[in-house]
Amino acid sequence: MQIKLNKVANDTNIFLRNFIKSQKKSPLLDPIIYSLFSGGKKIRSKILVDVGSIFNIEYQKLIAVGATVECIHSYSLIHDDLPCMDNDDMRRGKPSTHVKFGESTAVLAGNSLLTLAYEILSSKFFKKVDNKIKINLVKKISECSGHNGIAGGQFLDLSFEHKKISKKKIIDMEIKKTGKLFSFCCAAPLILKKRNKNEIKKFEDIGADIGLLFQVADDLIDYKGSLLVAGKKTGKDKKKGKATLIGLLGHKNTIKYANNLIIKINKKLKKYGSNSNNLSETLDYILNRNK
Amino acid sequence: MQIKLNKVANDTNIFLRNFIKSQKKSPLLDPIIYSLFSGGKKIRSKILVDVGSIFNIEYQKLIAVGATVECIHSYSLIHDDLPCMDNDDMRRGKPSTHVKFGESTAVLAGNSLLTLAYEILSSKFFKKVDNKIKINLVKKISECSGHNGIAGGQFLDLSFEHKKISKKKIIDMEIKKTGKLFSFCCAAPLILKKRNKNEIKKFEDIGADIGLLFQVADDLIDYKGSLLVAGKKTGKDKKKGKATLIGLLGHKNTIKYANNLIIKINKKLKKYGSNSNNLSETLDYILNRNK
Repeated sequence: MQIKLNKVANDTNIFLRNFIKSQKKSPLLDPIIYSLFSGGKKIRSKILVDVGSIFNIEYQKLIAVGATVECIHSYSLIHDDLPCMDNDDMRRGKPSTHVKFGESTAVLAGNSLLTLAYEILSSKFFKKVDNKIKINLVKKISECSGHNGIAGGQFLDLSFEHKKISKKKIIDMEIKKTGKLFSFCCAAPLILKKRNKNEIKKFEDIGADIGLLFQVADDLIDYKGSLLVAGKKTGKDKKKGKATLIGLLGHKNTIKYANNLIIKINKKLKKYGSNSNNLSETLDYILNRNK
Repeated sequence: MQIKLNKVANDTNIFLRNFIKSQKKSPLLDPIIYSLFSGGKKIRSKILVDVGSIFNIEYQKLIAVGATVECIHSYSLIHDDLPCMDNDDMRRGKPSTHVKFGESTAVLAGNSLLTLAYEILSSKFFKKVDNKIKINLVKKISECSGHNGIAGGQFLDLSFEHKKISKKKIIDMEIKKTGKLFSFCCAAPLILKKRNKNEIKKFEDIGADIGLLFQVADDLIDYKGSLLVAGKKTGKDKKKGKATLIGLLGHKNTIKYANNLIIKINKKLKKYGSNSNNLSETLDYILNRNK
C-alpha cells in the first residue's frame, strides 16, 4: 500500500512541479511551493486513482485532476492554520505558511493555489479531455470548495467551538470541511467517463463517507498521538473546544463508528468486485495511519 | 453615462441575485450578499459591456461574465481590507466585511466568492456559450486572479509599503493588482467571439491601461477626497506609506499621466469608430469620478 501511495504522491508532485515550472515567475511562488511540496501524503489523489482504476481511466488524466485537488487541499490547509482560524503554527512537522512567510502572504498564497487549480483544469497539461467534461469538473470542484463545501465546513467548525453540538451537525460540518473534496475525488473519474448523474451521486456519497472516515481517523490521531509522530501538535482539538465525533461519542465508540463506515463503503463497492480492491486497501490505510 | 452605468449595475445585480437564489443556503451567504451588493459601481462590468458592444455580443452573455468579474472583485476587496492586509474598517461607506462579520468569516466569504465566479461560468445561467469558450474564460480569469494577477499585485502592494519604489515597479504592481481584471473584461468579449490571440492580447493591453487609469483616479481621490464623498477613509495611502504614482510623480504630473493614458487608449480604439464611443465615455467617467 505504502509503495502504491508513494507512486501516486510522486507522480502528482512531478505533474505539479512541471506545471509550476510553466508559470511566469512571481514572489508568491515561494510560499506556494513551500506549502504544496511539504510532504503531504496525497491521499486524495490516491482515492481518485483508485476510483479511476475501477472505471479504467487513463492514469495521467487522474494525476492531473489529482494535482488540482492537491492545490485546493493545500490552499485550505494554509487558510485553516491562520491566526484568525485554527491558529496552528506547525503543519507536517514544519512551521505553517503564515509563520514562515507572514500572514498576508499566506492568505494570498492560499488564494493563488485556489486559482491554480482552475489553471490546471483549463491548461494544455490536462490533455485529451473534452471541454464539456472539463467544465463539469470546474463546476463540481467549485461546489465542493465554496460556501457549501470546504469554506462552509470551516465556517461551521469555527462556529461550533466550545459549544454542545449534535452528532448530526458535527457530521454535516465534517462532510463539508473534509468530505466534499473526497466526494469530488470519487466523482471526478465518473465525470471523466461521462457516467450519468445517479452514478456520480452514488460515488459522491461514498466520497463523503471516506471524508468522514478520514476525519475520524484524524480525531483519533489528535486524541492519542504525540507531536513527534503526527508532525503537528496533538490534543489541540480538546484544548480548543472543537466539536468532534470523538468528543461526543468517546474513544471506543468512535473506533466502532469508523469500522462501520468502512463496512458501509465496502458494501457499496461490492458490485465492482476485485476492481475496487485498491480503494478498500486505501480505506484501511486511512483508518490505521498514525499521522 | 450615469444612466448607462446604472443599467449595467442593475442588470448585473439581478443576475447575481438570481444566481445566489439558486444556491443551497449556507451561513456564509450573509457576508457574501453583504459584500456583493454593497453598492459598488460595477465599472468592470460596464467596461465589459462597452467592449462587447464593439463586437456585437449578446448583452446577457456579457452580464453573466460581468457577474463573474464582480464576484472576484468583491472577494479581492474583502481580503484587501483584512487586518493583515490594508486593515481598512470602512468600505463603500459601511463597515468592512471583517468588521461586520469577523475576520475568519471574511476570509471564508472571500474564498467562497472566488469559487462562486467559477460556479457561474460553469452553470446553466451562462447560456448558449461553447464549452471551449467557457474553458478559455476559466483559464483567462484564473491567470488574472492568481499569483501573477490580483493576488500577486496585492503582495507587491504590501511589500512596497514604506519603501522608495521605481515608477516601473509601481506600474507593474498596479497592473497586476487592478489592471489584470480590467484586462480580463476587455479580453472576454473577444474570447466569446473566438477572435485570435493577437487581437485578444491587444485588448488585454487596453485593459491594463484602463486598470492603471482607474488606479490613478483612485489615488487622486485618496489624495484629495473627503471621507463623506469617497465612502472610505481618504489620505490613507500616504499614512500607510503606500507606493503610488501620485506619491512619486506629484499631483499635477499624475493628472497629466492619466490624461495621456486616455489619449493612448483612445488612439488604439480609433479603428472601431463610433462603436467605441461608449467605452471612451466610460474612460472619462473613470478619471472624473469622485468616489
